[in-house]
Amino acid sequence: MKKIHCVMFMVIALLLSTAVISLVGAQRTEVPPALNGIRLPDGYRNWRLISSTHRTDNNTLRVILGNDIAVQAARSGSTNPWPDGSILAKLVWKDTAHEQWPAATIPGAFVHAEFMIKDAKKYAATGGWGFARWLGMEQKPYGKDADFVQECFSCHIPVKHNDYVYTYPAVMP
Amino acid sequence: MKKIHCVMFMVIALLLSTAVISLVGAQRTEVPPALNGIRLPDGYRNWRLISSTHRTDNNTLRVILGNDIAVQAARSGSTNPWPDGSILAKLVWKDTAHEQWPAATIPGAFVHAEFMIKDAKKYAATGGWGFARWLGMEQKPYGKDADFVQECFSCHIPVKHNDYVYTYPAVMP
Repeated sequence: MKKIHCVMFMVIALLLSTAVISLVGAQRTEVPPALNGIRLPDGYRNWRLISSTHRTDNNTLRVILGNDIAVQAARSGSTNPWPDGSILAKLVWKDTAHEQWPAATIPGAFVHAEFMIKDAKKYAATGGWGFARWLGMEQKPYGKDADFVQECFSCHIPVKHNDYVYTYPAVMP
Repeated sequence: MKKIHCVMFMVIALLLSTAVISLVGAQRTEVPPALNGIRLPDGYRNWRLISSTHRTDNNTLRVILGNDIAVQAARSGSTNPWPDGSILAKLVWKDTAHEQWPAATIPGAFVHAEFMIKDAKKYAATGGWGFARWLGMEQKPYGKDADFVQECFSCHIPVKHNDYVYTYPAVMP
């Protein structure tokens, strides 16, 4: 009888832990997809560094991270074209002055996270790249409908010679 | 007799492979230590993002990466003080204008990589932080002698209230 209790207890514990894991999983994927169906790439905050930029036309600081495929391409100089499977994540913040070092601008409010996903076949209509952007800390999908990608793509046409990518991987030892 | 040959062959192969591994190891650690004895942290290029800054007084772009302890501290808001074992890596590049987007500055020549290593006891004389810097792509240790840390530390005294650290972790979703 004790054995049966023990087995029942284990089954209940297993069911409970599965429920908890599902809940946590659900919370992790609650960010709605972009309006072209692209889902927010998992774990992009943990990706490795590719470059950084500062824009004076809209006073933002940007860091470009890449998934493993993109980082490997960047470090081996194989970025024209970037290989299929590469994902570039651009994190954008508003400039803020550093209170102890006024000549330094530091990341202030988070503006958006935007992504370029390379799949030459799937995204042939937009230079082989899938575009997606989520706004602010609330991660609201950008745009009114799926056509937002035309805005992204048209802005990237001037860098067609660089596989439609503005980012040049930063050199580092 | 064949058995002895076989064993000898295996021993030679083992010795050769050990020699190759040692050579590769030697190549990986050929960067000379800083003049206070701190060694270049392994694999810092693969560390995760903590922040980024732009300085107009010396026209540089900077990205601050952290080891696992530092990133965990940054993400949980436990950075005053930073926990022992935290290492902050600051990678610095000269500003360069983007040829297709003149209002954007991008990383040009690599200036240096500098590190702050938290060990409240070991580095008590300099606010609990060990300082080190390697110059350029050739990774030349900075300074004339071990006293270079006084220059580092004195520059960090204005941020004593923030555990001597200028970096505030960038907020991100």
